Amino acid sequence: MKFSFEEHSHRRFNPFTGSFVQVSPHRSKRPWQGQQERVIKSEQVTYDPECFLCPSNTRVGGEVNPDYKNTFVFTNDFGALTQDIPSGEYEDGDFFIAKSERGICKVICFSPDHSKTIPQLSQEEVFEVVKTWQREYLELSKLDFINYVQIFENKGEVMGCSNPHPHGQIWAQESIPDEPLKKQQSFSSYFLKNGENMVSAYLNAELKKSERIIYQNEHFVVLVPFWAAWPFEAMIAPKKAISSIAKMSDEEMASLADAYRVLTIKYDNLFEVSFPYSAGIHQAPTDEQDHPEWGLHMVFYPPLLRSATVKKFMVGYEMLANPQRDLTAEKSAGILRDL
Amino acid sequence: MKFSFEEHSHRRFNPFTGSFVQVSPHRSKRPWQGQQERVIKSEQVTYDPECFLCPSNTRVGGEVNPDYKNTFVFTNDFGALTQDIPSGEYEDGDFFIAKSERGICKVICFSPDHSKTIPQLSQEEVFEVVKTWQREYLELSKLDFINYVQIFENKGEVMGCSNPHPHGQIWAQESIPDEPLKKQQSFSSYFLKNGENMVSAYLNAELKKSERIIYQNEHFVVLVPFWAAWPFEAMIAPKKAISSIAKMSDEEMASLADAYRVLTIKYDNLFEVSFPYSAGIHQAPTDEQDHPEWGLHMVFYPPLLRSATVKKFMVGYEMLANPQRDLTAEKSAGILRDL
Ligand SMILES: O=P(O)(O)O[C@H]1O[C@H](CO)[C@@H](O)[C@H](O)[C@H]1O
Ligand SMILES: O=P(O)(O)O[C@H]1O[C@H](CO)[C@@H](O)[C@H](O)[C@H]1O
Repeated sequence: MKFSFEEHSHRRFNPFTGSFVQVSPHRSKRPWQGQQERVIKSEQVTYDPECFLCPSNTRVGGEVNPDYKNTFVFTNDFGALTQDIPSGEYEDGDFFIAKSERGICKVICFSPDHSKTIPQLSQEEVFEVVKTWQREYLELSKLDFINYVQIFENKGEVMGCSNPHPHGQIWAQESIPDEPLKKQQSFSSYFLKNGENMVSAYLNAELKKSERIIYQNEHFVVLVPFWAAWPFEAMIAPKKAISSIAKMSDEEMASLADAYRVLTIKYDNLFEVSFPYSAGIHQAPTDEQDHPEWGLHMVFYPPLLRSATVKKFMVGYEMLANPQRDLTAEKSAGILRDL
Repeated sequence: MKFSFEEHSHRRFNPFTGSFVQVSPHRSKRPWQGQQERVIKSEQVTYDPECFLCPSNTRVGGEVNPDYKNTFVFTNDFGALTQDIPSGEYEDGDFFIAKSERGICKVICFSPDHSKTIPQLSQEEVFEVVKTWQREYLELSKLDFINYVQIFENKGEVMGCSNPHPHGQIWAQESIPDEPLKKQQSFSSYFLKNGENMVSAYLNAELKKSERIIYQNEHFVVLVPFWAAWPFEAMIAPKKAISSIAKMSDEEMASLADAYRVLTIKYDNLFEVSFPYSAGIHQAPTDEQDHPEWGLHMVFYPPLLRSATVKKFMVGYEMLANPQRDLTAEKSAGILRDL
């Protein structure tokens, strides 16, 4: 009997974060008697008078939204991070170590239309979203106390999204959070050792193998990374390394918008449902240093596993020990490519 | 204005894993319009003829359960890890690194009674569960290819538990998974540097402060760790360091059973609902080495946040950047202590 990825359980190494994923390909056959998710019905109304994000409506905090036509950005009325706090450091022995954290949380409405999600917007409209990300990243990076800008989107109720109006968020803060920090460490060592950007070296290797590629256009590639943990996890990365969105040309942003649209349309078609996910951009910190080691890339973590109602639970073993998946990255990539 | 843990956002360091948690105490006030969980109604029947785990029933694989009276352990019919695979290593450049992983997945029925959960079992019955864990750990550690034994429990539909019959799991395997490996690294450096066990040093520090202690008995302490990420996360640890359950006396196991029961009863009382969580034991690997640096402890990760139906979503920012919590560890500890 020869060891095979398609049949035998194995661990794969994630060189971006230094962690592992446990793959159990034979396990897709187990029966499921557990929780079923509600099917998320599409929004029908283009304007909802009760929605905090629709144009001209009043938000919880009392402010009135403008009658916006493309995207609209505002500071979150209940932001987890705020600017106006005193700074403090706390270090009491080895076990009680904390420090204050200043930041800014923003909300980006992707469209005035309450009923649309990214895959339902036009190329031009998604391009506007990407341009808004660039504008925000540039603006936030000018602030002295902001060293990292996390751009992300939670889509779908099952992903804790509390409002169906198409929107994303930006949390910008003093410290580099754990996940991008791990990547920064790997990218730095790789760059030091090989004089090459790790993300573009990885993309080149994947383009040669081609089995995990879902789609590509002029500047960007959509793929399922070799070490993907979520069933239909995907990554969008540029063919030629770019450290941050600040450095992207309009043409490159249009390519990213196209890749983002194509992937999310494929997602919606997979189980014929508005496909939930958390997605976002990992990119260079805004700490005023040059970051040749950094390669911007977008990650997508969608929870659905087998159908519109059966999701993967990252619980128990996964929380306590190690992320675990049933179907292989190659299989998922094949399914998404063929859609 | 002075910086305060109760009012201002901050980051706390987790010295066991080397990671951070983002705390946003002011955020508890935000309105919630998102997904509501189903209220999990208690099981009424003590025996369910359709249940794969009830005594004398036939499992999916065709095997018949014995008419067991206390606990009952069997090898998972759909285990993510299996013994009978060929070994293989795969290393193709810097990006495609994988190896086969042998293991054993077991299911432990906690009681023949379909309707009971840990907080509803007697002290004697929970003691039987802990003794079963010890027996299994000892037995699995005798196998050459098993180097780590993860004992855990997923409770509740919302935690992906696919069968309400009270049960836990054991996944035993060749490699040390990521989470316990991170702890092993911290415990080793601490032991080298201070000649002291990190878990007991931490417990002593917490016992002195007392504000995060929920409960204690002769041998064990229940507390909310300073760096807790989940809203009502808790830890159970022995007052005097023990590297693994193999080394525990009957008296210590009875103390652990008591702590486990008391914590889960408090949990059930918190929102007057059968409280979901993932829990489990982190302890020394079974690699035939002595592990004086290791301190066994049990961790509890419950998702509920505000009520029986509103949970904390670890999504978006949390998946991409950093775990984040709203109420402080001290507040949660106070609430659980007073129940
Ligand atoms: O084994 P179960 O209970 O069917 O499955 C549950 O626990 C496993 C171990 O934590 C997870 O991998 C699954 O995602 C979860 O649904
Ligand atoms: O800000 P929202 O959409 O209300 O909230 C959602 O996203 C946040 C950022 O990922 C999370 O912290 C919350 O748990 C989630 O419910």
